[in-house]
Amino acid sequence: MGANTLGHILQLTSFGESHGAAIGGVISGFPAGVSVSLDFIQQELDKRRPGQSDLTTSRQENDRIEILSGVMDGISLGTPIGFIVRNTNQRSEDYEHLKSVFRPSHADYTYDAKYGIRDYRGGGRASARETISRVAMGAFAKLLLRSFDVHCYAWVSQIGQTSMNRLPNEFELHQIYENEVRCPDSITAKAMRHEIEAARNDGDTLGGIVSGLINSVPVGIGQPVFAKLHADLGAAMLSINAVKGFEYGGGFEMSSRKGSEVLDKFIHNTKNNLLETATNYSGGIQGGISNGQSVYFRVAFKPVATLQQPLDIMTKEGNEKTILPGGRHDACVLPRAAIIVESMAAWIIADHLLWSGLDTIDKIRKAQS
Amino acid sequence: MGANTLGHILQLTSFGESHGAAIGGVISGFPAGVSVSLDFIQQELDKRRPGQSDLTTSRQENDRIEILSGVMDGISLGTPIGFIVRNTNQRSEDYEHLKSVFRPSHADYTYDAKYGIRDYRGGGRASARETISRVAMGAFAKLLLRSFDVHCYAWVSQIGQTSMNRLPNEFELHQIYENEVRCPDSITAKAMRHEIEAARNDGDTLGGIVSGLINSVPVGIGQPVFAKLHADLGAAMLSINAVKGFEYGGGFEMSSRKGSEVLDKFIHNTKNNLLETATNYSGGIQGGISNGQSVYFRVAFKPVATLQQPLDIMTKEGNEKTILPGGRHDACVLPRAAIIVESMAAWIIADHLLWSGLDTIDKIRKAQS
Amino acid sequence: MGANTLGHILQLTSFGESHGAAIGGVISGFPAGVSVSLDFIQQELDKRRPGQSDLTTSRQENDRIEILSGVMDGISLGTPIGFIVRNTNQRSEDYEHLKSVFRPSHADYTYDAKYGIRDYRGGGRASARETISRVAMGAFAKLLLRSFDVHCYAWVSQIGQTSMNRLPNEFELHQIYENEVRCPDSITAKAMRHEIEAARNDGDTLGGIVSGLINSVPVGIGQPVFAKLHADLGAAMLSINAVKGFEYGGGFEMSSRKGSEVLDKFIHNTKNNLLETATNYSGGIQGGISNGQSVYFRVAFKPVATLQQPLDIMTKEGNEKTILPGGRHDACVLPRAAIIVESMAAWIIADHLLWSGLDTIDKIRKAQS
Amino acid sequence: MGANTLGHILQLTSFGESHGAAIGGVISGFPAGVSVSLDFIQQELDKRRPGQSDLTTSRQENDRIEILSGVMDGISLGTPIGFIVRNTNQRSEDYEHLKSVFRPSHADYTYDAKYGIRDYRGGGRASARETISRVAMGAFAKLLLRSFDVHCYAWVSQIGQTSMNRLPNEFELHQIYENEVRCPDSITAKAMRHEIEAARNDGDTLGGIVSGLINSVPVGIGQPVFAKLHADLGAAMLSINAVKGFEYGGGFEMSSRKGSEVLDKFIHNTKNNLLETATNYSGGIQGGISNGQSVYFRVAFKPVATLQQPLDIMTKEGNEKTILPGGRHDACVLPRAAIIVESMAAWIIADHLLWSGLDTIDKIRKAQS
Repeated sequence: MGANTLGHILQLTSFGESHGAAIGGVISGFPAGVSVSLDFIQQELDKRRPGQSDLTTSRQENDRIEILSGVMDGISLGTPIGFIVRNTNQRSEDYEHLKSVFRPSHADYTYDAKYGIRDYRGGGRASARETISRVAMGAFAKLLLRSFDVHCYAWVSQIGQTSMNRLPNEFELHQIYENEVRCPDSITAKAMRHEIEAARNDGDTLGGIVSGLINSVPVGIGQPVFAKLHADLGAAMLSINAVKGFEYGGGFEMSSRKGSEVLDKFIHNTKNNLLETATNYSGGIQGGISNGQSVYFRVAFKPVATLQQPLDIMTKEGNEKTILPGGRHDACVLPRAAIIVESMAAWIIADHLLWSGLDTIDKIRKAQS
Repeated sequence: MGANTLGHILQLTSFGESHGAAIGGVISGFPAGVSVSLDFIQQELDKRRPGQSDLTTSRQENDRIEILSGVMDGISLGTPIGFIVRNTNQRSEDYEHLKSVFRPSHADYTYDAKYGIRDYRGGGRASARETISRVAMGAFAKLLLRSFDVHCYAWVSQIGQTSMNRLPNEFELHQIYENEVRCPDSITAKAMRHEIEAARNDGDTLGGIVSGLINSVPVGIGQPVFAKLHADLGAAMLSINAVKGFEYGGGFEMSSRKGSEVLDKFIHNTKNNLLETATNYSGGIQGGISNGQSVYFRVAFKPVATLQQPLDIMTKEGNEKTILPGGRHDACVLPRAAIIVESMAAWIIADHLLWSGLDTIDKIRKAQS
Repeated sequence: MGANTLGHILQLTSFGESHGAAIGGVISGFPAGVSVSLDFIQQELDKRRPGQSDLTTSRQENDRIEILSGVMDGISLGTPIGFIVRNTNQRSEDYEHLKSVFRPSHADYTYDAKYGIRDYRGGGRASARETISRVAMGAFAKLLLRSFDVHCYAWVSQIGQTSMNRLPNEFELHQIYENEVRCPDSITAKAMRHEIEAARNDGDTLGGIVSGLINSVPVGIGQPVFAKLHADLGAAMLSINAVKGFEYGGGFEMSSRKGSEVLDKFIHNTKNNLLETATNYSGGIQGGISNGQSVYFRVAFKPVATLQQPLDIMTKEGNEKTILPGGRHDACVLPRAAIIVESMAAWIIADHLLWSGLDTIDKIRKAQS
Repeated sequence: MGANTLGHILQLTSFGESHGAAIGGVISGFPAGVSVSLDFIQQELDKRRPGQSDLTTSRQENDRIEILSGVMDGISLGTPIGFIVRNTNQRSEDYEHLKSVFRPSHADYTYDAKYGIRDYRGGGRASARETISRVAMGAFAKLLLRSFDVHCYAWVSQIGQTSMNRLPNEFELHQIYENEVRCPDSITAKAMRHEIEAARNDGDTLGGIVSGLINSVPVGIGQPVFAKLHADLGAAMLSINAVKGFEYGGGFEMSSRKGSEVLDKFIHNTKNNLLETATNYSGGIQGGISNGQSVYFRVAFKPVATLQQPLDIMTKEGNEKTILPGGRHDACVLPRAAIIVESMAAWIIADHLLWSGLDTIDKIRKAQS
């Protein structure tokens, strides 16, 4: 599978540089008969849009999506869905000074070394603007998941030194998009805002953690052995710009625990006659397959590499230089990252949900009957 | 791509249940002209073999690999390489009592729910015995990587509460396989051994962390945007049994740092005229592409789920029961996990190394000339 | 997808050289819950086995299949199915004289040029012995197709100058395997036998045509635009050794007809309330998707390239030489090719049948409910 | 691999309905450093454009391609290339009467049955307008193949009863695009023109055959066993609308020949020290791998299914009706099909050419050095 394609059954193939004509993609394997609300997709995109609050980059783009195929009268046709978002506010001249230099901890040098050429304007293909395709595809996935009552959430649980340790509950989840930090706890959200503002005033940047939760995942989603549900989730998250780590369920912390402390004992829910577990260290997944409990995970983001300080860069010729970085950048991308994580989770779950219709001959006969 | 296949260019398709006739796989995309030493491959397999020390399960299997195709007179033919390892010491009767029950934190329930049937003997496909295919493929990858002088290492850096914080250096790396714990620091290794023995005496189990390092990775390996080098590494590691988390470079810890603290400033090595970085928070990867510095990462393993204590299990009919677990299990799999992590790393790097020969029209012309 | 893998959902990855240890493969994506009869699979393999009649090569191999995984107590587990057939009657010394020469119209030269090395014994990977994996996978596909009452047939409709123009009917189809030529018309079969015997007496060889038919294909199988049902069928057939052409429905002959002569007019079958067509120039497929009529096609095989005559070959050094070919070869492979074509057809239809369960959100919900 | 993606290394993912907003695609795996001439690509598209001569449909579209990514200052970046061609002259109202009826030998019924919904305007996804993406990708492939001096040609060798039996030579090949029929023999071209005009005057339609030739293919291109060069070529051709058959080299005719008549004897070209063959029944391919001789093949097209006569159609409700077909259609698509066949051939060869850089460890080391 190519490097620009994500998914086994439900596949996005994405394209686009930050300062090219457009960002876009093709969704293949999306079933026919799904209601597709353009408004909903646009709302999702608006959640990652720059310029949406005073915390984010001042690059103002409308980021209007145009669907080019695969949908007629608001219903999916089963054919591939092409979509684009035009790049309209490209101030390429801001980047002229980066043409033949490499910024530290950016992809300038590696793209140049790999391809012998790179689009230096605004990060080119390595720009976070590429994530527009991810949020668009995630919106399509969510439209599909509605049929199965599966819901994905992602929120900011840490920014720099400020973290929120409270566990999610339904009430708080609804609050994710009620503040500009995307932390569902309003008190922590305020502290996070202050930390971002302080960093920005210093010309510095911050990283953080996005936590994710998928509720009502049916039992049996995920494929052993190389397409385990959490392996695909992890790869999807690690493919997002600036991500340095992924853990699910008990995560890294579980490495120092004893087996007797972290077994998820089964209990029989006599109301719905389903098996549940008393605890959920497994993160809703056993052997790569969902067990019906909530899937939860954490994604670590490094701080933005473009500071608003004099920056030590390297020229192509091998000379050190100090420059003042131009361009428009967030001091902290976490507020805009939550919707990206949420979108990736939706895509992976939707892909695996479709795939699991092929598990048994009985399921397949039911589908065909 | 199917659920049993790993890799883009270099692909392993694996098969096998713990108590079926054999574990094996097919390697496709392995180039012609590589020297294949059966002895080396067998030595690699011996590093994960059960019964190799008093710390591991007493299941005694020779685990002899048989290569069925793709190699003639010790040279690879460019055709697919089929291989098998017979399962010879199957005490299936040990598992009869698990036929219709679900153990906590195992994959019994999820396989059953997904497929309506499962091979309950020794974990079936979910058994860690499946990793034989991974170590075999990793050995092939290492034979290929020799041509490029790329070397992969993985060692145990934490077991339960005991961890080794010293950074790797070449001397210590050579010591990884000099003790049965696979921790290159002999003093820490002893402490780890004691912690494992204590847990085993209690009928309890431990998790831990395996650290990995890839040296001499050429610049330009890895593919944006969904096949980033670290995304593929992460997925490979997360697909190993019992893994709960993956981080690379600065990892989770980097989330709470400021940008100004973790920029990897370029320096010009005038001796070899290459660009290097003064620090390596990036973990040798920028934008998903290797930058020539060492790639390093950490993999978190949960404790083994099978305790040697009375275990609360659930019957298929929904009744709780307490059983004494049979079967033969490690109290801690970390000593045997190091070679698995190392093998996965070798495979991913080899796959991406081959792929990067297709980066530019100039490279392709050079290959064809 | 690798070069050794066939199928989108249902995937065979095959391996094996003619004179290596074994021929085999891994089937991935085979659903759980299918009854797997080892006897049936062996009977299918026996239909392609050399030495089964006086018309075929005298190489005597038992070609016993061993299933290594994925099946327990005669039921598929949903996990990958590994299988092998050992090569037991390898007279490699017969081929020693071919080590450094290239035979005309064989793959000796091309393998050598591509890989710089080749297994010269019995054709290596290019041997028709590779088709063992195809017949084995086809047998699995047929076991799956039974659930959907879909049936595949292939028979010899031409050998050299002798052809059978009668259209298939159910009675004759049952006769395919009742004579050793695999032509369901017993009178033509006799003429074909005579033509083969005459060619063999001359040390010469013959080609021919295998016709195929798939009955009871449900409407809606096949995927636009690059995975059209007939495109996948065609690729599968063209991948068989010695095949030079593929046509379906009206085929090449339709190129010289007028549109008004070959329209398949719809008729409404009021008995079962289904749409049918009065004629079937479309070969049961429109726009790459099955329309419920029979799928039929023809596959052209060239004559065997190894004559039992003095053969003009070329040495690696560029010198012409005349040799007497050794080895054991059929004068005409068509009798053994019918089962291979049938197997490929079964695989492609099974793959597409599974895939079509993902067409609409309604089908997917039905499968999951 | 999805149904809308073509290629192993070089992959096109296409999208678009005839009367949607646009037809387009994403090219992934295109190496960096290739000169991309927008003018050349547009010229290629103009060769398939409707309305280019009085022989083709009067649908007038400019079919201007817009490249959205992956190219900067006329050089490929190594990143995915997104492109679109807007649909500007959609007279959707012409198709209103087809909303709930099925035309004979069209894909109306099969799309409807498969997806439960279809874009009935102008054939939707099943329209030949989809081939715009194919010609665009073919143009990119040709730009890449220039570096290797590989050239693809396709021409009309038969229309209805008129055929051209002369073998190609360089002079004639240059004449392909010098008449509107795309037959490089000007006398035959005139006869073909008359046959098309006669059919059109009758409101009838014609099929025909496109022949293809690929010159200067390096030795060693193509992959055994399921990705044989001719199998991939065949699948590509069979995926084009209206194609009913594919043959290469000696083709179907070879089925009735004796082995002794069709062996391609090797000769040693002492001028360039290469091996050649005295004849080329093999069509330049042995064992699925190119042998350095010309690759040639033939593709059979059925007559266009939309006649300009009263047409017997079927309503969704199962009632027969006679309608007068509207819309704008060619009486014979062959003149516009040549460039499509040529484009598909270029893509397949380019894909395999890239792939063959991975054949041996020596090639890979050369590329990386």
